[in-house]
Amino acid sequence: MMSVKADRLLRNARHVAYFRKRGHPGKARQLVNGLLHAEVTEYPMEYPLTTEIPHDDPRYIAQLSSFYQDWQSRLTQLTRSEDVIVLCEGDPFFYGSFMHLHARLSGRIPVEVVPGITGMSGAWTATDLPITWGDDVMTVVMATLPEAELARRIRETDALVVMKIGRNLPKLRRAVAAAGRMDAAWLVEHAAMPGQRVTMLAEAEAVTPYFSILLIHGQGRRP
Amino acid sequence: MMSVKADRLLRNARHVAYFRKRGHPGKARQLVNGLLHAEVTEYPMEYPLTTEIPHDDPRYIAQLSSFYQDWQSRLTQLTRSEDVIVLCEGDPFFYGSFMHLHARLSGRIPVEVVPGITGMSGAWTATDLPITWGDDVMTVVMATLPEAELARRIRETDALVVMKIGRNLPKLRRAVAAAGRMDAAWLVEHAAMPGQRVTMLAEAEAVTPYFSILLIHGQGRRP
Repeated sequence: MMSVKADRLLRNARHVAYFRKRGHPGKARQLVNGLLHAEVTEYPMEYPLTTEIPHDDPRYIAQLSSFYQDWQSRLTQLTRSEDVIVLCEGDPFFYGSFMHLHARLSGRIPVEVVPGITGMSGAWTATDLPITWGDDVMTVVMATLPEAELARRIRETDALVVMKIGRNLPKLRRAVAAAGRMDAAWLVEHAAMPGQRVTMLAEAEAVTPYFSILLIHGQGRRP
Repeated sequence: MMSVKADRLLRNARHVAYFRKRGHPGKARQLVNGLLHAEVTEYPMEYPLTTEIPHDDPRYIAQLSSFYQDWQSRLTQLTRSEDVIVLCEGDPFFYGSFMHLHARLSGRIPVEVVPGITGMSGAWTATDLPITWGDDVMTVVMATLPEAELARRIRETDALVVMKIGRNLPKLRRAVAAAGRMDAAWLVEHAAMPGQRVTMLAEAEAVTPYFSILLIHGQGRRP
């Protein structure tokens, strides 16, 4: 599902960087197994922490900020003599981690962003149903929002995409029920990847922490 | 910007269908100039009408419905002996025309949908700025909605994507102004295509009827 352009850049790359959780191989890295050049140098950018501290805790913000700052320096240094590819899952500018690096690199060194197929496109394709028709309004929300806010957003949209579900699943389920749309809610895990699974929310018991997307399809105008 | 999978399917295809406006070469078809096989047979599916009659007029609905019905029959017939590729711009299940054909073919013949990079991804990449951060809510609306409804949606979202602009530009401009977000609104024409143009809405005088997307970037949490 990579673009022809991304595929070509990647196969020719001698320097490839990617984010990963400590002690894990890295999800973006795993997706390109077998595609990298034999002489590639890899730069795993290991998050100092992920869900150990709440995201609004000053310590979380300080540690993440210093992590991005550090990689900004290292990539700036490296790109004096070499081209570097940074792997991203989905589209880099759509709720991605690379944006935090991009914001720090932009203006200092030339950065080109290659758009990608989003996880949500993979998810609605997995349901084999269009997500939006005619004049449908589509809303994308994170399950990290407060329950009442989620319910209100779900009530007021035609088509819905929810990401960052993980441990927020019970809250999200209550919000979908409160909005009266339990029968229309689909859950897609590992969209367009090995282990893809499509279930109705009503039948789901738990979700994989990453790569889970909830969908409600629009039902707009159609001739 | 085509996926590796779509590129491979297309280059090997012997039967390629695509929508087009009467008397035009077809926008999807133009994007694959030079990629088609020498022995390909092409099936231009010409819309009987586009903007001549309002979309909620019974005559519009009847003519479009009969058009899709006709192509459903022809493609069903053809796929008894051959594989057929139907070209789509962007993602086929995201406000696309193919959905109307898919709804009629699905269950009769095997149909596989290949997700694509959406026009909106191309548009925010063209602005070189992330569209969404952290817990931002993103709303996608069509400029065909009533002005007050547009203004309300613009006011209540963090990130915004507006499509189907064309002749609705003056109305959209008033709605953005009413929502107090004129300074944040970007207009992208022909995203990721020849002739790409990025302007602030405040400075735009008119837009190309197709492939124009308005964006307001989210400004959410970032470490």
